[in-house]
Amino acid sequence: MTTTRRGRRPGAPDTRAAILAAARELFAASGHAGTSVRAVAAAAGVDAALVHHYFGTKDDLFLAALAVRVDPRTAMIPVIEGGVEGAGERIMRVFLEVWDDEESRLPLLALFRGIVEPGGRQLLRDGFLRMVLGPVGQALGLDEPDRRMTLVASQLVGIVMLRYLLVVEPLASAPPDVLVATYAPVLQGYLDGPLP
Amino acid sequence: MTTTRRGRRPGAPDTRAAILAAARELFAASGHAGTSVRAVAAAAGVDAALVHHYFGTKDDLFLAALAVRVDPRTAMIPVIEGGVEGAGERIMRVFLEVWDDEESRLPLLALFRGIVEPGGRQLLRDGFLRMVLGPVGQALGLDEPDRRMTLVASQLVGIVMLRYLLVVEPLASAPPDVLVATYAPVLQGYLDGPLP
Repeated sequence: MTTTRRGRRPGAPDTRAAILAAARELFAASGHAGTSVRAVAAAAGVDAALVHHYFGTKDDLFLAALAVRVDPRTAMIPVIEGGVEGAGERIMRVFLEVWDDEESRLPLLALFRGIVEPGGRQLLRDGFLRMVLGPVGQALGLDEPDRRMTLVASQLVGIVMLRYLLVVEPLASAPPDVLVATYAPVLQGYLDGPLP
Repeated sequence: MTTTRRGRRPGAPDTRAAILAAARELFAASGHAGTSVRAVAAAAGVDAALVHHYFGTKDDLFLAALAVRVDPRTAMIPVIEGGVEGAGERIMRVFLEVWDDEESRLPLLALFRGIVEPGGRQLLRDGFLRMVLGPVGQALGLDEPDRRMTLVASQLVGIVMLRYLLVVEPLASAPPDVLVATYAPVLQGYLDGPLP
């Protein structure tokens, strides 16, 4: 991380980044309930008061750590612009780009671990389904967009669980291209295949 | 629940059943970490000491509540005996029979909520993948059984998440026959279709 330090307290940007990185690791590993500000501070090698100084409450820190690097709405633009044809493959590629990248994966994993709490489930429903996949179904002009995008989601969420959360082999180590070839036809069928 | 009360303390079987039912509800809703013996006792309308008397520690209670009604290995016998042909549909039917039934669903949901903790993830990997799906892949004589059964698992786990845990519509209310018709061909492709 390169930053211009002129006019700022020395060390501040790196300390902030170190706290954020520690928070991401811990929230991803233990979820919101299982992570304390004190533990984040210890992992970052700073005092808990400094964490509060930079980020406020534990909830504020959680939200900052959760902040996804990729705006999912921007990421979905190439999926939408290409039309329905090949959209299954493009969704799969965007999905793997985001999830195979550790910096964007950790906050997303924290979101998934939040499913133990009702608020976390609501966040996943709203964040992933309503804000990301819902608009794609609309923009692609699908018939029954909600039903079709829910089928797509049911496959993507399962991949998240097995590849990234449970780390089940051989899925966890499969190269992205193999996964695209495996899952793209299935997603495409959910998008424009016959529905019973 | 009909029980023979001769020779037993009156009320005991019902109390035990009430505690188990309360434990299943609470573990399914809040997971292991978020559920206390005291809360289970309160929900069952008994004293916490009675819960300990019947079930021992909180871990013992958790295991008793987790005890799945259906032995998954028995449930999978019809899947295996029919051979590969149509196995995708039979897996889907068994899956929905187990998960659409509330008594067997609640302990399974508790298992899924356990994924926040490393031990819970291990349990899910061992319980669901190694004990249930792994032997099916072997018994069906699939080529690359682990790879294919992991693909099957990635779709089934996603359905669990959306239909039963996040309760996302229209998937949550879809009739079983519609889901069988939707997903069986996909599962069948994972079982005996070409792999990239």
